[in-house]
Amino acid sequence: MSPSSNREMYLNIPPATMERMPRYLMQLYRFKTAGLTQVSSQMLGESLRIKDTQIRKDLSYFGVFGRARYGYNIESLIDTVEKILGLNMQYRLAIVGFGRMGRALTDYHGTECHNFCVQWIFDVNPAVIGERAGGHVVRPLDDLEVCLKEEPVDIALITTPDDAALEVAHRLISAGVHAIYNFTAAEIPHGPNVFVENAQIAFGLYKLAHRLAGQWPRKR
Amino acid sequence: MSPSSNREMYLNIPPATMERMPRYLMQLYRFKTAGLTQVSSQMLGESLRIKDTQIRKDLSYFGVFGRARYGYNIESLIDTVEKILGLNMQYRLAIVGFGRMGRALTDYHGTECHNFCVQWIFDVNPAVIGERAGGHVVRPLDDLEVCLKEEPVDIALITTPDDAALEVAHRLISAGVHAIYNFTAAEIPHGPNVFVENAQIAFGLYKLAHRLAGQWPRKR
Repeated sequence: MSPSSNREMYLNIPPATMERMPRYLMQLYRFKTAGLTQVSSQMLGESLRIKDTQIRKDLSYFGVFGRARYGYNIESLIDTVEKILGLNMQYRLAIVGFGRMGRALTDYHGTECHNFCVQWIFDVNPAVIGERAGGHVVRPLDDLEVCLKEEPVDIALITTPDDAALEVAHRLISAGVHAIYNFTAAEIPHGPNVFVENAQIAFGLYKLAHRLAGQWPRKR
Repeated sequence: MSPSSNREMYLNIPPATMERMPRYLMQLYRFKTAGLTQVSSQMLGESLRIKDTQIRKDLSYFGVFGRARYGYNIESLIDTVEKILGLNMQYRLAIVGFGRMGRALTDYHGTECHNFCVQWIFDVNPAVIGERAGGHVVRPLDDLEVCLKEEPVDIALITTPDDAALEVAHRLISAGVHAIYNFTAAEIPHGPNVFVENAQIAFGLYKLAHRLAGQWPRKR
């Protein structure tokens, strides 16, 4: 139950397994909050509507095996999954674009420094630059390189208008940022040392629209 | 180039193909804005870093084939992909939870009634109920059933605190909502007639953290 943090161990994990790990973690938190100390793959599976065989398989990729008639110790499994997800470390964030979405993300519970701490906020709008948000002052985008040199970040969230996103991404990458969380509709290039995650909110709406449209005639 | 809107046609489309369709659409919009009228699968592929063979295969599922040495007519392909995604129809939205994220989504360009129109906004907070946002008045969550009976919606966006999300989802489903876009960390049950899309923002951070952690020692 102690995965080492090296790149090799993650290379052959199926992406679908990685997609499920945060869901396992959230459910384990809920079980813990509910006062449970142990959990079987069946319980975890039922609560998440995932087959217990799948859960055991997913965890086995990381060398985690439950015990017969006992399952997994919740505390220990949380600890392991946190390590797998890299949540045993702190990550510093920059938010580029302090519109509605940037504001929402600054306040987002996930960014209130459990593992993710907002370090810098940038915008181009003079009406917004200098505004205080949390412990931060919104800085002009022009200062991006200077700020990131002074205090580097691990992950940058891009919440600019779509047509500004690509240039911002290039500047972030040049300034040494290796992980970008893109909230715009722009295509941000992945690279050998640059990880990009997309949260293109419109896409979720499109997918739901597609499924509703497939239900013909539309139900109410 | 005229896919019919029936459920059968979508049943055997690989999920990965469906994931790529919105990206194709966005890129086609960009090509159109740039003044292009035709596009090859190679051009589309290069711009999105997707293999052209993959693009041709994806589109062929919908009976769309490019012409040799010409490719696809952009206007016509946009029309087709919009139909595939159900974007030739209007969808009415309810936003449940008018915190920072709810506000960001109310303003979100995708929801400003191109195809997606906000119809109702709900919250439990007396300080927020009655507030005007766009053309809407924030209604008390207690009125959810009455409002949805008066004017049904197609898609509900849940942006409540995590621990309120499940009850809200059950009420929405009981009130006849078939598509839920979940912005909380709660697990919302899918059903035979209920589509759920998750925009769990923390998960994107977890995935980036995981990949950064795999890069050991961490690079700056």
